[in-house]
Amino acid sequence: MAAPATPAYRRLSVEERRTQLLDAALGLFAHRAPEDVSLDDVAAAAGVSRPLVYRYFSGGKQQLYEDALRSAAHELELCFTEPPVGPPTERLGRVLDRYLAFVDQHDTGFSALLRGGSVCETSRTTAIVDEVRRAAAEQILLHLGTDGTSGTGGTDGTSGTGDADRTSAPAASGARLRMLVRTWIAAVESASLIWLDEEKRPPAGELRDWLVDHLIALLVVTAATDEETAAAVGALVAYEHPDGPVGTLARRVLPLVNAAAHLP
Amino acid sequence: MAAPATPAYRRLSVEERRTQLLDAALGLFAHRAPEDVSLDDVAAAAGVSRPLVYRYFSGGKQQLYEDALRSAAHELELCFTEPPVGPPTERLGRVLDRYLAFVDQHDTGFSALLRGGSVCETSRTTAIVDEVRRAAAEQILLHLGTDGTSGTGGTDGTSGTGDADRTSAPAASGARLRMLVRTWIAAVESASLIWLDEEKRPPAGELRDWLVDHLIALLVVTAATDEETAAAVGALVAYEHPDGPVGTLARRVLPLVNAAAHLP
Repeated sequence: MAAPATPAYRRLSVEERRTQLLDAALGLFAHRAPEDVSLDDVAAAAGVSRPLVYRYFSGGKQQLYEDALRSAAHELELCFTEPPVGPPTERLGRVLDRYLAFVDQHDTGFSALLRGGSVCETSRTTAIVDEVRRAAAEQILLHLGTDGTSGTGGTDGTSGTGDADRTSAPAASGARLRMLVRTWIAAVESASLIWLDEEKRPPAGELRDWLVDHLIALLVVTAATDEETAAAVGALVAYEHPDGPVGTLARRVLPLVNAAAHLP
Repeated sequence: MAAPATPAYRRLSVEERRTQLLDAALGLFAHRAPEDVSLDDVAAAAGVSRPLVYRYFSGGKQQLYEDALRSAAHELELCFTEPPVGPPTERLGRVLDRYLAFVDQHDTGFSALLRGGSVCETSRTTAIVDEVRRAAAEQILLHLGTDGTSGTGGTDGTSGTGDADRTSAPAASGARLRMLVRTWIAAVESASLIWLDEEKRPPAGELRDWLVDHLIALLVVTAATDEETAAAVGALVAYEHPDGPVGTLARRVLPLVNAAAHLP
């Protein structure tokens, strides 16, 4: 197994080389539309020979794009992992910080992917993105449901929908709660695209706080008509600090809610 | 210009014939993926000869799809038009009723279009959909801004973002308010797709009420940190009935908001 005499650059393992090429590709996708990135560009960016790149991506440009997308999707899914400890809004804030850093870093590639209409978009690339959305929703539902008490703890356990044929669903994944989380994720994606369009204003921290407030608001109004969401919210609020996002937001909106509750 | 002897079916004008063929196409797109609808299918559905359909859509399947999409986009934009009279939440409810009826009617075509990944999707089809989103946002901003008082009426007129280089924007189209409306529209789209996936449950009326509550919630939490949104919300609330969606929602969430404002 003695290495033969080789060129001056370090010999990487197959996996290391693949990672190096995908990183170079993602760097290019961050600033160009996917259809404008060629295998030759990747070779130049990675400082390797063209035949080497062609060997790793024998399926051409489309394979390069899909492999890079899978790599980014994996990285993004890691952003969502957060231990179920401490105030839920702080956990959510950390997830959003990592997510917005990812959006910031991948920039044009992120936009092109979510906006659609690229010639590189196929049912396969759409499936990869949908899988990321599904993973994000699952992580959030985990925090909403396994946090201390079950989704229906402390209530009469009836569903707000009055629909009896979904009784086999786990407590914290009721239809309304799932729709809530998935629509909020869509809102986060949309806000990210607008943020990139508006030259990353407001600052990421301000956007994160607004997105946290958005989810709190959605949970509270849904809790008003859905028992399951009400139970989840009740359990989560107990973990919040008085001067955390929930308490601060509640004190800020209380005068307005009070006035609206007593409209003349 | 005397008409020669012709077949028994009524002779339509060019525009009428075009509308008839597009309606037939939209009927097919409602139940099949766009790539599975051929010009021959449209001829069969409309009960006309194949050469006639090929004459109207000489660009083939792709032209048919794009023309049908433009026709649907126009129909959808008409759904958003609502006179700026009466309680704002009632106006919004009517717009959402028309929108959900459109989603219900176009079903699979609506899903395929918004989910992406179809071979018929191009930068042109994406642009048509984006134009519909833009029109929807503009209509909502109109109701938020021109309704009684201007967006900054009754406040000191400062922007919540502390950003001075956007002072030329009209009063009711502040950056935060625009982001709010556009993210809500994304949430509505996402909720519509979930609704179609879940066999149109909950009933459309229940989904509409939840989407109205969602926008109210988003306006209220954004008003907590953005002066412009606060002014718009203040002006809108004055038009609401005490037992309308705003008053009802406020009374429902008041105990929870009050508890969260005084966390131990």
